[in-house]
Amino acid sequence: MNLKRYLPILQWAPQYHRGQVTSDLIAAVIVTVMLIPQSLAYALLAGLPAQVGLYASILPLVVYAVFGTSRTLSVGPVAVVSLMTAAALAPLAEVGTAEYIAGAILIAVMSGLMLTVMGLLKLGFMANFLSHPVISGFITASGIVIAASQLKHLFGVQSSGHNLLDIGASFLTSLPSTNVPTLFVGLGALLFLLWSRRFLKPLLKRLGLAERSADIFTKTAPILAVLLTTLLAWLLRLDEQGVRLVGAVPSGLPVFTMPSLEPSLWSQLAVSALLISVVGFVESVSVGQTLAAKRRQRIDPDQELIGLGTANLSSGLSGGMPVTGGFSRSVVNFDAGAETPAAGAYAAVGIALATLFLTPAIAWLPQATLAATIIVAVATLIDFPALGRTFRYSRTDFGAMLATIVLTLIHSVEAGIIAGVLLSIGLFLYRTSRPHSAVVGRVPGTEHFRNVLRHDVELCPKVTFLRVDESLYFANARFLEERVMDLITREPELTDLVLVCPAVNLVDASALESLETINDRLQDAGVRLHLSEVKGPVMDRLKGTEFLHHLGGEVYLSTFEAWRSLTGKTLLE
Amino acid sequence: MNLKRYLPILQWAPQYHRGQVTSDLIAAVIVTVMLIPQSLAYALLAGLPAQVGLYASILPLVVYAVFGTSRTLSVGPVAVVSLMTAAALAPLAEVGTAEYIAGAILIAVMSGLMLTVMGLLKLGFMANFLSHPVISGFITASGIVIAASQLKHLFGVQSSGHNLLDIGASFLTSLPSTNVPTLFVGLGALLFLLWSRRFLKPLLKRLGLAERSADIFTKTAPILAVLLTTLLAWLLRLDEQGVRLVGAVPSGLPVFTMPSLEPSLWSQLAVSALLISVVGFVESVSVGQTLAAKRRQRIDPDQELIGLGTANLSSGLSGGMPVTGGFSRSVVNFDAGAETPAAGAYAAVGIALATLFLTPAIAWLPQATLAATIIVAVATLIDFPALGRTFRYSRTDFGAMLATIVLTLIHSVEAGIIAGVLLSIGLFLYRTSRPHSAVVGRVPGTEHFRNVLRHDVELCPKVTFLRVDESLYFANARFLEERVMDLITREPELTDLVLVCPAVNLVDASALESLETINDRLQDAGVRLHLSEVKGPVMDRLKGTEFLHHLGGEVYLSTFEAWRSLTGKTLLE
Repeated sequence: MNLKRYLPILQWAPQYHRGQVTSDLIAAVIVTVMLIPQSLAYALLAGLPAQVGLYASILPLVVYAVFGTSRTLSVGPVAVVSLMTAAALAPLAEVGTAEYIAGAILIAVMSGLMLTVMGLLKLGFMANFLSHPVISGFITASGIVIAASQLKHLFGVQSSGHNLLDIGASFLTSLPSTNVPTLFVGLGALLFLLWSRRFLKPLLKRLGLAERSADIFTKTAPILAVLLTTLLAWLLRLDEQGVRLVGAVPSGLPVFTMPSLEPSLWSQLAVSALLISVVGFVESVSVGQTLAAKRRQRIDPDQELIGLGTANLSSGLSGGMPVTGGFSRSVVNFDAGAETPAAGAYAAVGIALATLFLTPAIAWLPQATLAATIIVAVATLIDFPALGRTFRYSRTDFGAMLATIVLTLIHSVEAGIIAGVLLSIGLFLYRTSRPHSAVVGRVPGTEHFRNVLRHDVELCPKVTFLRVDESLYFANARFLEERVMDLITREPELTDLVLVCPAVNLVDASALESLETINDRLQDAGVRLHLSEVKGPVMDRLKGTEFLHHLGGEVYLSTFEAWRSLTGKTLLE
Repeated sequence: MNLKRYLPILQWAPQYHRGQVTSDLIAAVIVTVMLIPQSLAYALLAGLPAQVGLYASILPLVVYAVFGTSRTLSVGPVAVVSLMTAAALAPLAEVGTAEYIAGAILIAVMSGLMLTVMGLLKLGFMANFLSHPVISGFITASGIVIAASQLKHLFGVQSSGHNLLDIGASFLTSLPSTNVPTLFVGLGALLFLLWSRRFLKPLLKRLGLAERSADIFTKTAPILAVLLTTLLAWLLRLDEQGVRLVGAVPSGLPVFTMPSLEPSLWSQLAVSALLISVVGFVESVSVGQTLAAKRRQRIDPDQELIGLGTANLSSGLSGGMPVTGGFSRSVVNFDAGAETPAAGAYAAVGIALATLFLTPAIAWLPQATLAATIIVAVATLIDFPALGRTFRYSRTDFGAMLATIVLTLIHSVEAGIIAGVLLSIGLFLYRTSRPHSAVVGRVPGTEHFRNVLRHDVELCPKVTFLRVDESLYFANARFLEERVMDLITREPELTDLVLVCPAVNLVDASALESLETINDRLQDAGVRLHLSEVKGPVMDRLKGTEFLHHLGGEVYLSTFEAWRSLTGKTLLE
């Protein structure tokens, strides 16, 4: 049982049958065709040689098939994680140096270790720290930064930077040195991809293809752009025209790579690796859950941490870059009919074959083509309407979202995400530190009690009923103290205060101290404190404490009982 | 009105009358007598010259009388803040050097600025980050560290360290060089103070003093120890016996001191100053609130930040150390009958007179006497039973408390408090990320719905009612997604799911996205999502969103209505 939990492959492999093999193989072919340009493109985006992207698309897919719980997630390099990798490495080494590549490999290893440990400790809930508005804002801003960073490849110029300001300034100053043949290739690829995104599917359908096949074929359009421009580069010897190509890629399968054990490097990359882990995990889990739900399957987030962790670990140890579950590839994998994670393992075989036999061709692939595929891919990540929606729905959520976007654009991806997380936790604590509470009075002639500010209710000058609409814990315990003291200073006639507690699901140790304090202060002021409608589990806990002995008043089962006992009035009065 | 808020002196000064002047003057004399040994002792504890403690007890008291809202708080140096000051300065400079003193002054200035800004921005709620168990554990551990750190003065040896391990090791190795006359003075003072704490009050009462007077007189016992040992030191020339005395103290009032403007020093001390600010504020506010409540007065926490902030700023700018409201002094001030903050200002005059005229006598005061007063004072801070109480009440709260205590003892005060705060926020987020939810069924023959696990209720195989017992926000939004997906994978027959929401006070943007996601996934799985008993304010917000248009099912006012409509059953069935 426990073995099946940690080795999800045991849940499906024993019943794996021929029908599934066929479905998985078909999906694998399609995913391979998508993954080849993506793995090359995201290696370029991360500032890494092409083979690092290919290696990251072989072993991790096999390992994920063993340890992952999603049946259809397609693991490999993705855009946002590649951008974060580049940003993390920028202060450490020059792009293209051996130190830079070693850094990327180390991030994959560290991220793999972190995710695996988080999974073993069942820390999947940590991903909840990334609220939806922060993730959404972060991905939109990252998409913009990624698209901007690729313009240099499209124009064949040299520029740099990891935020919009730097990239923009650097790109604009380098613009005079634009390489026209590169621009032709790049814009051509871009226009083809944009065209295929909009018109290829209707065209294929008119040519007689089924809806689903047309859809899947459309999503593999980048491989056509890759094939055409590679052929063009080879025929026209475009490298002699100044068009930058991918260049020589070592042929052959990845081998074991020893990661750096330099402690200073580990500590320099720790925060980046953690952020990459969490962002990658959140993205991957949300894709995985969405796809699993369509077939009424489930994924286990804590085991997913182990699945992604071991995938990253295997990526780093085989010379690859950080990986996670990619949205577009997983959807294609799902739509193409993948039924088990074996489809991923078959795609790994496809990439391995490409690494063995296609590298001479890949060498002729223009970088501008890859930049075009990146720009078209990330364009779908940018979601401006989400800003308006969030603004209209909640100003605090919008604040966290805006801070994330602005900092990601003008400073760095890491600053953006850290600011977003801290701000949303801070705003959340702030919001819960001021819980709703209301003085209630009796609806005349009934046993019901309602807010005096909203309803026409009966009051008693010497007894106040205060309803608390939130659990009591350290963030709001002192607020309750202030609320109560405010009440008794305003009403010098008061002799009894009843806390009405039906919405109090929890009273933590801080709140218990506050209740003791409130009780003591009320006694000093000559007011008795009572409780009513305390929930069962809360009462069970309170029974073990001194508080109930010190309590100046009583604990009433119902508020009406308290009313009757303290005011001497009955239902008919 | 607004002026009165920011200048609380305007709330009482216009009505200040002769009766109050008399009460305040009497209290001020008693507080002065307590404050002289305390200000000298806490300067010693912080590793600062005696006059720094005295200066911190003059101007800050006057400034607090203008800006503070507590009528009876006694501002000045306190034990825990002095320990934190010493710990913050230890890595920067040697005790006794000009840099060390400048550092302490800068901490007072920075802490003053931070508190004032927090007050102007109404950030008083930030103090809630320090939960009761963390504060309680921190103060117990600090008390132990402080007491241990004073042993060297009691034994007349040289030792160092800022945590229990270092202090203990250093003290034990230095023990052979114990100075016997010092030990006599120190132990004598210690025994006298312990005796007076236990037996002086009953004795005075037997001698005919009233309860209250006996109580107040007992609390001024340290001044007796100071007077006696000072006289002894002078008569016997104890300095020639190797007894360390306070030594020459510059006579005269404090003058304006320019704080260091060195940016690197500011950034090195920033975290320490923030922690000192928050700890001092929390302690001060809780003392102030307790005392105010006894007279049905109120204090305004945001204005208290300004009061303490300006007090610290004035302390630093007049060459003093960080200050806050002290517990024992404030209680004495209150019991002695202080009616307005003017009592504090009068005490400041008392300290100023001492600084002008008593410094030749103070020079003869043995440090061992001050150490004894510190040990006796902090002994009351140590609260071991709180550990047991917290452990029995809540394991999570105990975890945060224990981490604070252990780290404070074995590492440092700053590590202790930071670990405590982070752990309690983390545990809180963890706890709220798993909200209680229950599948409910109908109590037969009624309109009530109860948890199926606790009650014998009626169910319907195709319709599930899920009650959510918590507000929905980013910390638990994904948990709800998992809970729902778990439900529908377990019950393949399901056609309708009703979320019962009477306890949902808030749905933030993340939770709204999650509800959208749940709705989409349920639709993919052929299940309709309904809501029931949505609260008014939550419904108002949802009405402005797309969610209600996408919702597969209905929003029902009551759960029974949903039951009747979805199952076709009526009340009588």
